[in-house]
This record gives sequence, C-alpha cells and structure tokens, in this order.
Amino acid sequence: MIFKVKGYRSAALHCGVKRNPLKKDLALIYSEIPAIASGVFTKNNVKAAPVLLSMKNIKKGLINAIVVNSGNANACTGKQGMKDALSMAEKAAFMTASNKNEVIVCSTGVIGIKMPIDKILDGIETLSYFLREDGLFGAAEAIMTTDTAKKIACLNFKTGGKDCSIFGMTKGSGMIHPNMATMLCFILTDVSISKKMLDRAFKELNELTFNSITVDGDTSTNDTAVILANGMAGNKPITAYGKDYKIFYNTLEKVMLSLAKKIVKDGEGATKFIEVRVLNAKTQKEALKCAKSIAGSSLFKTAIYGGDPNWGRILSAVGNSGVTFKEEKVDISFDKMPIVKKGVEIKFNEKKAHNILMQKEVLVIVNLNYGKESASAYTCDLTEGYIKINAHYRT
Amino acid sequence: MIFKVKGYRSAALHCGVKRNPLKKDLALIYSEIPAIASGVFTKNNVKAAPVLLSMKNIKKGLINAIVVNSGNANACTGKQGMKDALSMAEKAAFMTASNKNEVIVCSTGVIGIKMPIDKILDGIETLSYFLREDGLFGAAEAIMTTDTAKKIACLNFKTGGKDCSIFGMTKGSGMIHPNMATMLCFILTDVSISKKMLDRAFKELNELTFNSITVDGDTSTNDTAVILANGMAGNKPITAYGKDYKIFYNTLEKVMLSLAKKIVKDGEGATKFIEVRVLNAKTQKEALKCAKSIAGSSLFKTAIYGGDPNWGRILSAVGNSGVTFKEEKVDISFDKMPIVKKGVEIKFNEKKAHNILMQKEVLVIVNLNYGKESASAYTCDLTEGYIKINAHYRT
Repeated sequence: MIFKVKGYRSAALHCGVKRNPLKKDLALIYSEIPAIASGVFTKNNVKAAPVLLSMKNIKKGLINAIVVNSGNANACTGKQGMKDALSMAEKAAFMTASNKNEVIVCSTGVIGIKMPIDKILDGIETLSYFLREDGLFGAAEAIMTTDTAKKIACLNFKTGGKDCSIFGMTKGSGMIHPNMATMLCFILTDVSISKKMLDRAFKELNELTFNSITVDGDTSTNDTAVILANGMAGNKPITAYGKDYKIFYNTLEKVMLSLAKKIVKDGEGATKFIEVRVLNAKTQKEALKCAKSIAGSSLFKTAIYGGDPNWGRILSAVGNSGVTFKEEKVDISFDKMPIVKKGVEIKFNEKKAHNILMQKEVLVIVNLNYGKESASAYTCDLTEGYIKINAHYRT
Repeated sequence: MIFKVKGYRSAALHCGVKRNPLKKDLALIYSEIPAIASGVFTKNNVKAAPVLLSMKNIKKGLINAIVVNSGNANACTGKQGMKDALSMAEKAAFMTASNKNEVIVCSTGVIGIKMPIDKILDGIETLSYFLREDGLFGAAEAIMTTDTAKKIACLNFKTGGKDCSIFGMTKGSGMIHPNMATMLCFILTDVSISKKMLDRAFKELNELTFNSITVDGDTSTNDTAVILANGMAGNKPITAYGKDYKIFYNTLEKVMLSLAKKIVKDGEGATKFIEVRVLNAKTQKEALKCAKSIAGSSLFKTAIYGGDPNWGRILSAVGNSGVTFKEEKVDISFDKMPIVKKGVEIKFNEKKAHNILMQKEVLVIVNLNYGKESASAYTCDLTEGYIKINAHYRT
C-alpha cells in the first residue's frame, strides 16, 4: 500500500547515527507550501535542544519541513546540542528552499551523547534529492528506536465536497508516560483549516490519545507531536465549529487513537495490550486520572502479564489515584466477567478469569458508581522483556 | 543473639493463613504496661480494615498489645473485614488482659480475600500462653510475605544514667513507595518519653527513612509503622528538646534507617542497593523530591541493573521531578567518579564506570549546584526477578 497526502514529499535513509547500516536513521518531510502547524511537547523540564528549537519555530504557526533522526536524542548535550539542532534546521531549509524558522527538528535515541552532525548534514543533502510523494513509509521506519514495527495510520474523508487525507506516523515504546507520552509523532493532512481550530482539535485529542497511554512511567526529554495542514485538498477553510470541523475532528481522533494504541502494543517487552476503562467518575478528568493510576501500576501490569486476576492491586491503585470515590461502591470486571461488586469479591471462576487475562487484548472495567463521566487509559503488561531491553540499551 | 527490650514479651507461630506449614504467619507482641505509642499509616485512600482500626486506637496514645498476621492483608474485604479486625483486637486484648482499644492490629499479604478468622483467633489464644521476653526474633519472621529475610535492628543507649534499648522489626519488599513505604514496622523501646516528643521524633524520622525508599512505585493498602515506648528503662521522662531527646532521636534514626535500607536491599528481585544522593538543592524538600524522582524511575533502575552508565536517564528524571534547577549546572558522579559536569558528559572510562555500577551497593550523586540543601533516597535495581515474583503472586 502506498500512502500519499496531497502536497507532501518525504525521503529517508541510513546516514550513520545508528550502527546497523540496514537501519534507516534520518528522514526529511516537506510540504510543497508552508503548512499551518500545531504541536505539543514534553513537559519534562529537561528538554532536548531540537525540542526547544521546534517549540520556538512552531509558535508562528507555519511549517514547511520536518527533519528527524533516530539513534541520538541530542538531549543533555549543552550548547553544542543547540548548535547542532540549528545546523539541521538550516541545512533542511536550504535544501528545500524553506525559511529556516519554518522547520521542525526532532531527534530520538540515546540521551547525553554528542550528535554526529556531519553525517546528519550530509544525509539531509542526499535526502533532499530524493523527496517523493510515496516516501512516507520510509520516514516511519527512520524514526524507530526500540520499536519493533513501523507505526502509521491513514484515513481519507470528505469535507466541503473535497477529498481529504490524514496520515500519521509515530514512534515510541519505552520512556512512555503521559505529559506527553514519550514519542515522536508527525501528522500530515491536506485539509484547509485555521491555526486556531487546528490547535484546538490537536490539543484536545492529544489528552485523549497520547496523554492517555503509559508504558513505564518515564517521561522523556524529546517528546514531540506535530500536525501540519497544508490546505491542498482545496476545501473551504475550516475556521469555526460546525459539520466540517466535526468530520475532521472525528477522523483525526481515529488516526491519533490508532497511533497511540500502536505505541502501547509495541511497549518494550509487552505481550499484551490493556485498556483500563473507568466508568461513572465524578468528572472526566478524574476518570482519566483514575484510569491512568491503574494503568501506571507496575504491580497491576505484572499481574496481567501472569494472567493473575489480582483485583486487589486494581482497587489499591484506585486508592492511590487521589480521585473521589467510595470503596463500597466500586465494581470491577475483566471484559464482561464481573469480579468485584460493591467493593468486595464475588464468586468467579478463577480459571475462566485467567483465560480472559491471557488474551492478547485485555479490557479492565472499573465502575466507580459515583458520577457520570468515563475515560480510558491504555497500557501494556510489564515483562522480563522490558528489563532485558533497558538494562543494556546504551552499551 | 537474643533481642530483649525491658517489659516486652512476644510469640509467633504458623496458624494456617499461609499454605506452607513451616512458615510462621501470626505474632503477638505485648508490653507489661500500656506503652506511649505513635504511628504512621498508608496514604492510600483504600485502607485495609486493620489500618482503620489501628489508626483509631492509637489516637488515645496508649497501646498494650500488637497482633499481626501475614498471608492475608484483610484489605478490600468490606464490612466482614472490619468485623474480623475487631475480633482480632478483642481476642488479643482478652488473652493479654489489655483494654481492647489499646491494641494495634496489622495484616499483610494478599488483598481482597476474606480472612480465615477462626484459625487466627485460635492462634492468638495459643500465642498468649507462649509470650516470652526473647520472642521478638520469631515475630520478625511471622510478618514476612515475599521478604527473603527477617529485618531487625536493635541498639542500646544511655540516657539520664539509665540503659535503654530500641528494637525494630519490619517487613516489605514489594508495593514499596513513599507515603508511606509499603510495609509494616514495629519499634519497641523501654525509654520513658512523652507522647508529644515521641510523635515528633517518629514522624520526622519517618520522612527521612521509610518515606525515602521506593521499590516499585506502588503504595499499599496496609502500611503501618508503630513505635511503643513503655518507659520501663526508668529514665527521667523525656518531655522536651535537650540532650536526652537528642540521644534518643539519633539512636532511633539509626534503627529506622537501618530497617528502611533492609527493605530496599530485599526489594523484589533486587540484586543491588542504590542510594541516590542529591546535593545543593534549593530546599531539603526539593532535594528529597528530586532524589525520589530518580530513585523511582524504572529506566534508571534497569540501567543500574545492567551496569549501564546511562546518565541521561538520571538527568531526565531530575527534569521530571518538578524541582528548581538549571540543567547547565548539574554534576553527576557514580561514587567518586565524575560523569557529568555542568550538564554535559565529561570523558570517563566506560569500563570503570560499568564496574562501579556492578557493585552490590551503588551510590549515585547528583549535585544541582543550585542551593545548599541535600537529601538521599534509597532504592534497588529493577530486574527480571521482580516480574517473576509478581506475575503469579496470588495464584
């Protein structure tokens, strides 16, 4: 399958940041005209140089190119790190005839190591000659680090009588925790939309998708999610709430949720995808907080790994979440199988519960029976694989 | 070695909560006269029945007996759970001729399972006939769950010309995270001290010891740490700050820190003890917060397991801690080996750094160079062993 979005070109290659010459480590994405852009960035107070630069550049609202490397995060690299990020932006701008302030620069990989900047600058030059409409698939590969699979999502929709597309790619499988999830994400759309409405949709959806996932509770220094909208679909610009906005919003939600789930499914060492759905909390914010508290518990995640219906760990995590609830009102079920009613265990078939938890996708439902708002958080199980991957990542 | 503190008697046995008949699961501790008592309890909003009962009983300030079982936490057990906790208190009070409101009840083990209360009540009766001055060693054994070793500490000191003792026992190795650490702890002293001064010392030291450790970030439903002071050493009562208070305080600190470190060293699956020392933070509170943020990072803990000098994960955790600092001022060293100066890596011998990290005890020093306050947090590495222990704990 070939993924194309009107007006975007891309290319990727191995330039030598990663050791394995078969692995791509640099990508360039280019919009034929500067695109309206919106972005969200890590809340970690230690921000990598490319994050600081991209935050600055996106403020004006127009982005023409994205340059991204994997294998080195250019984080905790001092003044030299900022110089290197600027060089990447300048080189990408020069080679694509863009304004150097209209470039997003992203890096992902090991923290604290100086960038092999010459290799990257040479790579950007080469890539600029190979920009293609069907190059997005390669770019999705070039941003991978410990990811075991490319993560992309693409949907088409009609608005104002015009065919539009949203394409998204993301990377991330460790250092994944809300605010925002540790990851890079690039979403490209040809829809015509105002900066204001794009910001609203993207920030709101970010809370419900990428900020609702967790792998290991660590927030990285390099999180960046950016959306570009170049308007080349030719629809009447979306400038307010209404039918067109809604269609766009709903499609974007599907793309972002799909990408967020792909990160969790590829969580380091994960064998299972887990959705924690909290029903009937006092507010939606509390529902999400509660779901995240459960999804973030190491003990919960290891229990699910072992297929152990250890619901006490779930109720304990609810208690740690700080949300308002009454223990004697809480119901818990695994998928459609009730386990706890009004805060106490009901008779259930242990073997059947174990079998439900041993499926590839596990749904845990916690009904607080306290208010009317609901939300989901997404996570994976915690396994020996996570330890193996992270004990020797650098060496 | 025999541990005795004047006026305390204790006994322990296997009553049948744990499956393995060789493992003790019930202990009774008794003071010949009601002791001044102070306690700290879990901050989890889901509190086990015995915690709720003990919190209530300790308020009046006098405790005569402690009854504690392992194998079942009596948490998330509804109204029946509270009935069972009350039965345990009443039985212990009756058999030791104590006031039933002057009993501490503790349970630790699996959450959500009904207590085998008949076995426990029979056990309490038996124990009451075997209370001995040298029975504390057995009690330390009876409170173990996934612990691989008994955890006790005992120190003698002189105050007001009298010989005094402080004996402490603790349990805990998983679900360990500040506020307070997931654990039970009983400290017995024969010193004479007012309730006010005992509270001050115990709560302050709790912050610097048990609340400065983390194993897995999960706070349990059953945390309880209690100190009894029965005054049988015969010293002039300590009722204010001064030399005698200071001697007592310093000795108690040593006992509590020793117990806290023992919990971390026995952390589930741990192969190493790690001290994270943060120097020169703006306030002591921020120093502790920063140290805890690093100590709580799964990625940091797995890196130390692998002996990987991945300092970027340390700086990233500083950034996530929310404390005030400047990245370009931070120095990091492993023991005496400098790794980072002013926020950037300096040349260091990778092999030597690896060897330092592969020792049984690892000291990580983070100098923020921002203020003048320092603090330490204590943790262990995160290994495949943690996963194995927790994936099938219940089944």
